[in-house]
Amino acid sequence: MAAHASDGGTIEQRLRMVEDRLEIYNLIATHPPSADTGAGEHTASVWTEDGVFDRGAEFPRPTGPAAIAATSTSAEHRRAIEQGIAHFAGLPYVRVAGDTAFAISYIQILVPDRVGPVFEVPNHGSSQGFHVHRVAANCWEFERTGAGWKIRRRAVRSLDGSPPARDILRGALEA
Amino acid sequence: MAAHASDGGTIEQRLRMVEDRLEIYNLIATHPPSADTGAGEHTASVWTEDGVFDRGAEFPRPTGPAAIAATSTSAEHRRAIEQGIAHFAGLPYVRVAGDTAFAISYIQILVPDRVGPVFEVPNHGSSQGFHVHRVAANCWEFERTGAGWKIRRRAVRSLDGSPPARDILRGALEA
Amino acid sequence: MAAHASDGGTIEQRLRMVEDRLEIYNLIATHPPSADTGAGEHTASVWTEDGVFDRGAEFPRPTGPAAIAATSTSAEHRRAIEQGIAHFAGLPYVRVAGDTAFAISYIQILVPDRVGPVFEVPNHGSSQGFHVHRVAANCWEFERTGAGWKIRRRAVRSLDGSPPARDILRGALEA
Repeated sequence: MAAHASDGGTIEQRLRMVEDRLEIYNLIATHPPSADTGAGEHTASVWTEDGVFDRGAEFPRPTGPAAIAATSTSAEHRRAIEQGIAHFAGLPYVRVAGDTAFAISYIQILVPDRVGPVFEVPNHGSSQGFHVHRVAANCWEFERTGAGWKIRRRAVRSLDGSPPARDILRGALEA
Repeated sequence: MAAHASDGGTIEQRLRMVEDRLEIYNLIATHPPSADTGAGEHTASVWTEDGVFDRGAEFPRPTGPAAIAATSTSAEHRRAIEQGIAHFAGLPYVRVAGDTAFAISYIQILVPDRVGPVFEVPNHGSSQGFHVHRVAANCWEFERTGAGWKIRRRAVRSLDGSPPARDILRGALEA
Repeated sequence: MAAHASDGGTIEQRLRMVEDRLEIYNLIATHPPSADTGAGEHTASVWTEDGVFDRGAEFPRPTGPAAIAATSTSAEHRRAIEQGIAHFAGLPYVRVAGDTAFAISYIQILVPDRVGPVFEVPNHGSSQGFHVHRVAANCWEFERTGAGWKIRRRAVRSLDGSPPARDILRGALEA
């Protein structure tokens, strides 16, 4: 499955593919900081004009940079930020193919726990800690544009034992 | 410690090493999707014929692709999947050396929490959240084969304060 | 934002930048193993002479390799290790610029939970699980030295809803 990375291609082409891969890592890595600060302008800058953010049937499904950015600047989202919401990204699976790329990744959403017991950890202070609110699977589709790699589609589904998240995860298992 | 990456080597050799490194990242990144979907065929495809999956004394220690794949397709594991098990991989330490490579990584195993209080997070729905069941240290050994990089050995030990996990973690601290 | 990775530069320069980037990933990835084993010697080896570890106003602010290493070899920290402390690093945002680099990353600090209920997960044993003690934002500054990349400054702030952590996270959102 991992055999074809360096199949053929000039040094220039192979190096470009490596650089592309690292840019995709950075693009995924900026999502949590962007979400946790409500950075609407930044969010808008990383989506293609026809970008679709698919959070599942129970949430709105915004299309285009402005609508997608609005989800992270709403009063509701702002309240989540004030409560200390943290998006936490795991190691993604990433594959680049010419001017498109895709990734499968896990994300945790955590919030400070204000109801549980206080833990004291030597040399690390005391706190009620954090509650893992969601663990979700993401499928990302990227596109190379004149202004760098952008997100064309992100689908996210909660890992709650139901099939949709598993359908996303299978995208990382190209034979 | 991080000094020798580009010591000597032709452009071709150095580029190959970078590509190898990125393939190892993908190989580690496919483990959670594979485990969380019970993808036996995929699991079998990423292990060498003599591969050993060492989970510690309290678990079986399967050898070879078929036996290792069976651990993720068993009825027991299937039940864990139906309950919503999620493997979550952190940033791994990876070092490539010719046709072998190794990595030290952390993994969390989470499950939906069905006993705790419901948390409501603005703009992010409500849920009982997830329970972090295990945090473990992994030592991976990889081998380049005609069919790409494969796993020859993975040892995993729970981070519960006992020495075995720390012995694994020290593998990332080559001076 | 992700547009400029391959702007100009010779093959040699571009390849070097890619190698640098991967070394930074490894440098960040060795932090948890180092912290969770109390590896003072290793910790000292990865900081510049003028390195500053800024943990916020409520903690000491050690400067230089010896003082920084001492934070992970103290009796207090040793007690945290014996209790099973685990640092868990997410996917970092990393940017290399010549002989310096910086990264923005998230980290979780977990400890075994000794007060909560026991969870049994099929095929994955039973445990009281782990408590997420802290989720924090890190800003790292790196410097190329004759002995490889080293850390010149690390600032870390807890994601508890207060502004300092968000100020750090914005560092990943270069327009």
